[in-house]
Amino acid sequence: METLFTLDFTVRDYECDLQGIVNNSVYSNYLEHARHEFLKTIGLNFAELTQAGVFLVVTHTAFHYRKPLKSGDAFSVSVAHQSSSKIRGEFLQRVIRQSDDALMLEGTVRWASIDDKGRPIKSLQVAEALHNAAHTSPQL
Amino acid sequence: METLFTLDFTVRDYECDLQGIVNNSVYSNYLEHARHEFLKTIGLNFAELTQAGVFLVVTHTAFHYRKPLKSGDAFSVSVAHQSSSKIRGEFLQRVIRQSDDALMLEGTVRWASIDDKGRPIKSLQVAEALHNAAHTSPQL
Amino acid sequence: METLFTLDFTVRDYECDLQGIVNNSVYSNYLEHARHEFLKTIGLNFAELTQAGVFLVVTHTAFHYRKPLKSGDAFSVSVAHQSSSKIRGEFLQRVIRQSDDALMLEGTVRWASIDDKGRPIKSLQVAEALHNAAHTSPQL
Amino acid sequence: METLFTLDFTVRDYECDLQGIVNNSVYSNYLEHARHEFLKTIGLNFAELTQAGVFLVVTHTAFHYRKPLKSGDAFSVSVAHQSSSKIRGEFLQRVIRQSDDALMLEGTVRWASIDDKGRPIKSLQVAEALHNAAHTSPQL
Repeated sequence: METLFTLDFTVRDYECDLQGIVNNSVYSNYLEHARHEFLKTIGLNFAELTQAGVFLVVTHTAFHYRKPLKSGDAFSVSVAHQSSSKIRGEFLQRVIRQSDDALMLEGTVRWASIDDKGRPIKSLQVAEALHNAAHTSPQL
Repeated sequence: METLFTLDFTVRDYECDLQGIVNNSVYSNYLEHARHEFLKTIGLNFAELTQAGVFLVVTHTAFHYRKPLKSGDAFSVSVAHQSSSKIRGEFLQRVIRQSDDALMLEGTVRWASIDDKGRPIKSLQVAEALHNAAHTSPQL
Repeated sequence: METLFTLDFTVRDYECDLQGIVNNSVYSNYLEHARHEFLKTIGLNFAELTQAGVFLVVTHTAFHYRKPLKSGDAFSVSVAHQSSSKIRGEFLQRVIRQSDDALMLEGTVRWASIDDKGRPIKSLQVAEALHNAAHTSPQL
Repeated sequence: METLFTLDFTVRDYECDLQGIVNNSVYSNYLEHARHEFLKTIGLNFAELTQAGVFLVVTHTAFHYRKPLKSGDAFSVSVAHQSSSKIRGEFLQRVIRQSDDALMLEGTVRWASIDDKGRPIKSLQVAEALHNAAHTSPQL
């Protein structure tokens, strides 16, 4: 899968726990923020979709924690994507420390599109935007 | 794997996001808190271990999100465990909604014991406590 | 102001930061959760009010941090309230460590009732429930 | 008090709650991150100070919430400071929305320097760095 988007971050001290490293749960925040910013670049606004009754929900995540981020670390989060249908897809995301290009975490995030009753619904807007992104974006 | 421990929670409104459901990353917090409370029941204090230079770190997580928790939901988080060696193990955890016993999330969390340089170290205290727990605890 | 409600908590490790103490911002979460649970006891559900277009928003907070909570501390958060009008009021809240009744934090939280355009609106339901609570609840 | 430092942010969706606006407690995170980044520009690293046994702790905050930040808003957090002694000081901070320069929040944050027993200690390094910053920094 090709990288479609990359976002830069800096660790904030409040994200570190009593081990002095970024708490595991915070990576989930980082990856979500990178996905939502990516969605905006292809014309999809998560908050607007939610208000319109299209709920993009995460159905499965698998995170491989390789090295811990620490206070002040600058890092990038990449986003790749493959659709498996018009209502499901999977993101592949990597967290790379900028000082030495070390791979800190890689994860997969599967999503589905549901309505406000929790039933799967096709969203052509979402499906097309993701399909086009995967076929036209240059390697970043 | 038998359930070794169960902890009850109530969703707090600040844990819900603009979709009106508990944000994905918060489950990671719930599961961690249940694990740490379980560790205390078998004589292991996460904060004290950390101060003593024994870092129990998460190396891999896989979460299957089945149904979303909402504002005010009461739920339980269970903890099961199997050791794979004296420096590694895996927790199996489930989030159950109390009103109807619905399975909301199940996840596996692999851990390793490392020192302050990030090198694997055996912790007999940790290994024995977990081994004993898995062989003596009654089903809860 | 008399105490109308008290809620018990235990510090969760992920709430502690690299100083090994509960991060300042987390007290805001604790106080909010205690307020929302108090509101439920007087028939006001924050999530339902929000869905109904009545937004109770915080307009001012003042927190006096006296002693830091640490990993594993059990503590209580109290809620007192005085209305200043049908669209505004002020909560007084205290965080008390259970092991020694030490006062860890005291804070005031002013709120207003607004609509989805941000304009002040009277909510009789909210005003009456809070008025009745302050005049009928026994000291807890 | 003159502005010594300004840091730009973008609201992340996970920071918004079920009202669709940034949760109150998150402003505390934003202001802390801006303060810690400011401290780095004057040679003070919060994580390193903590490891060295100098704990800069917040003793009092007062936040005036004026308008709510929403999903995707770009904003700046400013930092001004006045020392009241070698062990205490006060930050004045403002959150400004970039699209229209609207003042979203203004807050004061008082701090003290303590040791690992919670006793006040003078830190010449901290006191001098803050004193110099307030007298040499140009208006940003």
